[in-house]
Amino acid sequence: MAQDDNKPLDNLPDPGRRKFLNTAALVGLSGAGLSVGLSACNKKESAPAAGAPSAQGEVKGEVGEFGKYEVPPGQLDDYYSFSSGGHSGEVRIYGIPSGRELKRIPVFNMDALVGWGITNESKAILGTKPNGTPKYTTGDTHHVHQSYVDGVYDGKYMFVNDKLHSRLARVRMDTMECDKILELPNVQGFHGTFTDKRDPVDSKINYTTRVFCGGEFAIPLPNAGTDDASKYRSLFSCVNSDTMEMMWQVLIDGNCDLVATSYDGKLAATNQYNTEMGVHYEDMMAAEMDACLFFNVARIEEAVKAGKVTTIAGSKVPVVDGTRASNKDPKTALTCTVPIPKNPHGVNISPDGKYYACSGKLSPTASVIEHDLVLKWFDGELANPRDAVVAEPEIGLGPLHTGFDNKGNAYTTLFLDSQIVKWNVAEAIKAYKGDKNAKAVVDRIDVHYQPGHGFTSMGETKDSDGKYFISDNKFSKDRFLPVGPLHAETAQLIDISGDKMKLVADHSVYSEPHDSIIVRRDIIKTRQIYNMDEFPLAVKDPKESGVFRNGKKVTVKLTSQAPTYSLREFKLKKGDEVTIILTNHDKVEDLTHGFGIPKYDIQFIVNPQETKSVTFIADKPGVYWCYCTNFCHALHLEMRTRMIVEA
Amino acid sequence: MAQDDNKPLDNLPDPGRRKFLNTAALVGLSGAGLSVGLSACNKKESAPAAGAPSAQGEVKGEVGEFGKYEVPPGQLDDYYSFSSGGHSGEVRIYGIPSGRELKRIPVFNMDALVGWGITNESKAILGTKPNGTPKYTTGDTHHVHQSYVDGVYDGKYMFVNDKLHSRLARVRMDTMECDKILELPNVQGFHGTFTDKRDPVDSKINYTTRVFCGGEFAIPLPNAGTDDASKYRSLFSCVNSDTMEMMWQVLIDGNCDLVATSYDGKLAATNQYNTEMGVHYEDMMAAEMDACLFFNVARIEEAVKAGKVTTIAGSKVPVVDGTRASNKDPKTALTCTVPIPKNPHGVNISPDGKYYACSGKLSPTASVIEHDLVLKWFDGELANPRDAVVAEPEIGLGPLHTGFDNKGNAYTTLFLDSQIVKWNVAEAIKAYKGDKNAKAVVDRIDVHYQPGHGFTSMGETKDSDGKYFISDNKFSKDRFLPVGPLHAETAQLIDISGDKMKLVADHSVYSEPHDSIIVRRDIIKTRQIYNMDEFPLAVKDPKESGVFRNGKKVTVKLTSQAPTYSLREFKLKKGDEVTIILTNHDKVEDLTHGFGIPKYDIQFIVNPQETKSVTFIADKPGVYWCYCTNFCHALHLEMRTRMIVEA
Repeated sequence: MAQDDNKPLDNLPDPGRRKFLNTAALVGLSGAGLSVGLSACNKKESAPAAGAPSAQGEVKGEVGEFGKYEVPPGQLDDYYSFSSGGHSGEVRIYGIPSGRELKRIPVFNMDALVGWGITNESKAILGTKPNGTPKYTTGDTHHVHQSYVDGVYDGKYMFVNDKLHSRLARVRMDTMECDKILELPNVQGFHGTFTDKRDPVDSKINYTTRVFCGGEFAIPLPNAGTDDASKYRSLFSCVNSDTMEMMWQVLIDGNCDLVATSYDGKLAATNQYNTEMGVHYEDMMAAEMDACLFFNVARIEEAVKAGKVTTIAGSKVPVVDGTRASNKDPKTALTCTVPIPKNPHGVNISPDGKYYACSGKLSPTASVIEHDLVLKWFDGELANPRDAVVAEPEIGLGPLHTGFDNKGNAYTTLFLDSQIVKWNVAEAIKAYKGDKNAKAVVDRIDVHYQPGHGFTSMGETKDSDGKYFISDNKFSKDRFLPVGPLHAETAQLIDISGDKMKLVADHSVYSEPHDSIIVRRDIIKTRQIYNMDEFPLAVKDPKESGVFRNGKKVTVKLTSQAPTYSLREFKLKKGDEVTIILTNHDKVEDLTHGFGIPKYDIQFIVNPQETKSVTFIADKPGVYWCYCTNFCHALHLEMRTRMIVEA
Repeated sequence: MAQDDNKPLDNLPDPGRRKFLNTAALVGLSGAGLSVGLSACNKKESAPAAGAPSAQGEVKGEVGEFGKYEVPPGQLDDYYSFSSGGHSGEVRIYGIPSGRELKRIPVFNMDALVGWGITNESKAILGTKPNGTPKYTTGDTHHVHQSYVDGVYDGKYMFVNDKLHSRLARVRMDTMECDKILELPNVQGFHGTFTDKRDPVDSKINYTTRVFCGGEFAIPLPNAGTDDASKYRSLFSCVNSDTMEMMWQVLIDGNCDLVATSYDGKLAATNQYNTEMGVHYEDMMAAEMDACLFFNVARIEEAVKAGKVTTIAGSKVPVVDGTRASNKDPKTALTCTVPIPKNPHGVNISPDGKYYACSGKLSPTASVIEHDLVLKWFDGELANPRDAVVAEPEIGLGPLHTGFDNKGNAYTTLFLDSQIVKWNVAEAIKAYKGDKNAKAVVDRIDVHYQPGHGFTSMGETKDSDGKYFISDNKFSKDRFLPVGPLHAETAQLIDISGDKMKLVADHSVYSEPHDSIIVRRDIIKTRQIYNMDEFPLAVKDPKESGVFRNGKKVTVKLTSQAPTYSLREFKLKKGDEVTIILTNHDKVEDLTHGFGIPKYDIQFIVNPQETKSVTFIADKPGVYWCYCTNFCHALHLEMRTRMIVEA
């Protein structure tokens, strides 16, 4: 409390007090049953910011000042926010500034609504076990990034990782549905991911062709059941964004956490919080310095082409050696290790392509690394990789992720301080050079509580526009009506268009958003109906409907058109292996039909002009009313067909 | 278009034009590829209401007028809305008026986030197949209702149906989690459900003890694989709300759609849209009159007690005969059939307990049935059940569901007109008696588009307060940024506190909400942490942690406390049947941990003081980093333990 009284919210923290957190204290706090994060959280409650509510939920300030960020009935949002869903396994789409959830995209999870994990088409994408069920029904999405052209989103694809089972998924932006999933070989804890922005060599390729994937958990390679922690390694992977096939992997020291890519296509970067390669958490934070590791993409691909590769544990993916010992000569090095203070979490590139901000989670600093200086090191023109660091402002406790506006400012989430700090990159560089009049930190604002990722509107593109910042917070505590022990998270919307940041909305989000991007609405062009010709199994004419038997294998072809299915009933025999193919012949936007089979655990939808199929054994005799599960018409309740399974 | 020009939005429709929709026209329209609903929808776009946006998404009227319904950062909502999630299989909690989604409650679906369908505890509730996987992973929730005391919610339980597999689930309101699921025997298409509000006989029991469940799809009883449509029947079921066990069923003619219950506990009601008992949709709408069927609860339970029951197909649940042929004498009848115009969809009771509104979906009318007159019929004092109808105002096209305020007004959704119509019950009764000066319809407002359920704040209780109405619309079309072929639905918030209804917010909702209730926030009392003692498997002391082997069966006991698990690693042998038990020792509100096992498709969370367990075969040798999937602490990334499976 006394500490708070001494620290006005808009002032800089006392740098002396905050220089490097004490490791022992961090560990000790858990034993007391209270995390550092939570005590910081309680602190905030006792000192609400201007305009923020008191503990009683009352508001100081005018309701009207928030109302202007509301999107009135029928009006459209200005931006999309595409957001990971954490251990829900999905991706979400929100409208900004309203915070309206516009869609959930099932990716690694099952979704009973659309039939994801149930239809044959979705199972083909997810992969299956020998018994035909999905290989995995869980997943942990962390980072979403889209494909680029010339440094700005092209509206073609979105990519998202699964940390749990080390998979990369792709979402088509025209239909907003997942179309490919790839499991990375020999990787555990695939965490950071980023698309490239252009080719490192061919300047004509000014668009995304690769996706980079960082492996966070070091494991024995091969991971065959013997344990020798000294042999643990991590891999950094590259995937072809078009074919969704593996291109190459890099064997590294330490681990990969977040990933960033340069605007010129030459470098990919990953922050490393466990250069110690510890397997216990106190070992993971033993060293005072960790690193930001840079990959020279062109050189890696030359090495692959030259056959300077190995393979691991039956995988055919070429692996190059990116370890420090093998990359001491800058002129041939595939990787460059830039030392960064203590356990950095997050690396982000500025929209002008010049700087990477890499935050030391257990240091109160953000390190600014100059892109051209890293290239100079690879050219043998910079003696020490650490010299690529051109600023290291002290910004607050627990800095994690940084977004950028279009005026040279950076916005970093401070997990422990429960704040967003706005700092000026040019001023930070001046200060690092010794200019005592330079002042890096411009503003700070409380968020509620414990921010993880933070990101600005269009901030991961050349078109960063400096309008909004969203703070995805890990704890909401008292910000919403209580709903039991599992709380919603808060995504707080901050207006960054003025000199001072302004908190304008608390959006609730189902656990647990990790990262998002805010995209201008004009970039996204979606289809409202499918093209029937794209579905090989399409039942193109209702007259093709019927029951087609080949021994015990039976195909049932159906079409839907509100308020009927093309067959009023269809007969099967107990024990048949049945494939139902359903094509929706309705052409009107938003006219989706469902198909549910009672007691058979089958449910899916068909959007306009879409075809889906399911396969199952008709093992329960009886009459089963298959019905439309998605309200479609005044006679929706009457839209049914009978599946009659004869004993 | 010409038709629209002739019909100012605030005027009554021309009764002549709208008297009973032509069946052939409805059927024919589907052949043209356009539903009735959608042409009505397009109509709205060409004639926006005052204050509604133009097709270009621009808004007439002041942004500020909507802003006052916004909930500023940190302020709490006034109401909870508990909402079904349709074929997503879940239940959702929103804040009102903000529209913030506060929680998803997994019920019939799988949820990778919390581990629903993955943990042993959730599987025990869901039921399993012989191989240990959940019996069903799909479901279709339609109606949510809570338990009552003295005509108002008591904040104890919420009940929700699964139409797909005919299950009733219960949600504990203190933890907001599902604790029981019951599959109804011999029922298909369990659609309407409602809690009773007091005992029909014992006046001391002024709270909920029963849940009524309507069977919509008639099936052969028993349903054993032979098909004779003339033998199809439906059942109306009663479940003990405390034990969640079946009490009794009633064999009926026709079907059950929605369900309502009286405030005195004496009657339950269901509207019937298919008294024809047709199996094809044109047969289902052949008759001009269908019905609202009333159940005399006390008499049914006397009959059960007296053993006047049968059983069906191996089920031990007592079944009484509620068919019309067996219930002709009012003085002994178990059921009373009140004729209602053409295919009614929806029956709702007014907060004063006096009237049921039952809407004829294919008639432009709402029928008002007086509760006391139905009781009179059961007493032999009313000759004709139809005489219980005391009003039948013409209100618009496609009337479905009705909510009530505290001033004697009813609000009915008009699916085909895409409107909400406000009508006064007393005026409607006067008009029905012949008073030519009486005017039932008070106001109408456009919604966007095709409303299904509509409901008022506290409107299903004696404390109906006339503040808000929500229209859960089936089509959103152009109301939100496009997200591909699958659209969000709109839940539109309407201020009903004044004389004129006022549309104040478009909330987006993931498909497909069917019904909701709006509950005052003071009624809901949730727990923020669990009680460790409630979990029989709890690992109460971290010192109890360890690997306990019994042949091939291995139990791993773990605790979590940010940022560590109590075991840093644990060893297993390939082929072991492993049960992991994890107790979260953190006590701080909102301090949830996760547990994910790579490649083993296992992921779940433990909320503060909660215990969960999973069982699986350790069939893949190697080192697996089990990690915390729910951001918990500054050292969250470091919170891991290694599962080492020896080959």
